[in-house]
Amino acid sequence: MAKKVAVLLSGCGVYDGSEIYEAVLTLLRLDQSGAEYQCIAPNDEMMHVINHATGEEMSESRNMLVEAARLARGNVQDLAEAKQESFDALILPGGFGAAKNLCDFAVKGSEMSVRPDVLSFVRSFHQAEKPVGLMCIAPVMMPVIFGKGVKCTIGTDPDVADEIRTMGGDHQDRGVDDVCIDPVNKLVSTPAYMLATGMHEASKGIFTLVDEILSMIKK
Amino acid sequence: MAKKVAVLLSGCGVYDGSEIYEAVLTLLRLDQSGAEYQCIAPNDEMMHVINHATGEEMSESRNMLVEAARLARGNVQDLAEAKQESFDALILPGGFGAAKNLCDFAVKGSEMSVRPDVLSFVRSFHQAEKPVGLMCIAPVMMPVIFGKGVKCTIGTDPDVADEIRTMGGDHQDRGVDDVCIDPVNKLVSTPAYMLATGMHEASKGIFTLVDEILSMIKK
Repeated sequence: MAKKVAVLLSGCGVYDGSEIYEAVLTLLRLDQSGAEYQCIAPNDEMMHVINHATGEEMSESRNMLVEAARLARGNVQDLAEAKQESFDALILPGGFGAAKNLCDFAVKGSEMSVRPDVLSFVRSFHQAEKPVGLMCIAPVMMPVIFGKGVKCTIGTDPDVADEIRTMGGDHQDRGVDDVCIDPVNKLVSTPAYMLATGMHEASKGIFTLVDEILSMIKK
Repeated sequence: MAKKVAVLLSGCGVYDGSEIYEAVLTLLRLDQSGAEYQCIAPNDEMMHVINHATGEEMSESRNMLVEAARLARGNVQDLAEAKQESFDALILPGGFGAAKNLCDFAVKGSEMSVRPDVLSFVRSFHQAEKPVGLMCIAPVMMPVIFGKGVKCTIGTDPDVADEIRTMGGDHQDRGVDDVCIDPVNKLVSTPAYMLATGMHEASKGIFTLVDEILSMIKK
């Protein structure tokens, strides 16, 4: 039976939602590996909408689920209906949406909190001893979700690494083509577009993360 | 000197803009091959906005350039400012945006016309004997842009193939992992998500298209 992986999205676009290349490279590697996947997103408004051509905020609102459906060619599940029991693992791509919509790290730094539905869904994989992968800025949620002492990386940014340490995380510097593995907790993180200057470069760490997550699934 | 390829987008999302996976796989292969790329889009409204979760039309308007910027991580050029002379080749990913925004095939079938700015930009590559690649539904524009007798494929859909033949195109059936090459005109087309059932499958034809386009560049 194929391994089935949940992919939690937060919109569609690096500045206000999920980083598109990270999400697509994740789905590509899963499909190349013969794994099945299901994209999932909270059915709620994004923090704001950014004009990606100018970087300025737009005077409109968009819904995470509706925008994530663009990344999923329509096949996206409402987080409120998603069950951890249906999946063998979970992966969270990055993009500012991870730090603006799934939690409020972009606004509050180490004083952040994770959306309750995201917190309970992601934590349920950990409690069921299923592997979870997080990339780019998403690993800032790891100490809050998985507990103090958790090993993780967002790359080499000293300020973000310090915020993670303030929250109790064991941040490890990693290069763009590398991953940080916490084998006890079955967690894998990679810097992706926190460091990547091109898609080929980003694909190395992301493909390794997906490979590691799939190898941790017992079936 | 690196080969430089223009990638013409029409938004961000399969139902009203550029097909995201086709665009990202194109950019990935270009980057993997050491080529440089520049995303380009018309600075104009999309025909309409589709809620990708429900398939229904939304009561808002979006701009092709602004939405394409999501696919380009912000680095998108206004088609009005793009010069053929700056590039060695051109690739058009598909998605309904190619048939709704770049031309009106989705509404008018073989009576369609191509946006004048798209027509003159794409045709200028052909006139300069530079290769052009088109995928998914985008090849319906080929007879209008490049002239009667042009060899092309959108896969195996008999109705769309007939429309192409009505416009004077020489449609050739092709599988999802294959391409149709018109060597005289330096044109390459592939079915991509006209036929693909998964991203790994889609990547085969798209990667081959990119490889063929790069091999046709003389430098």
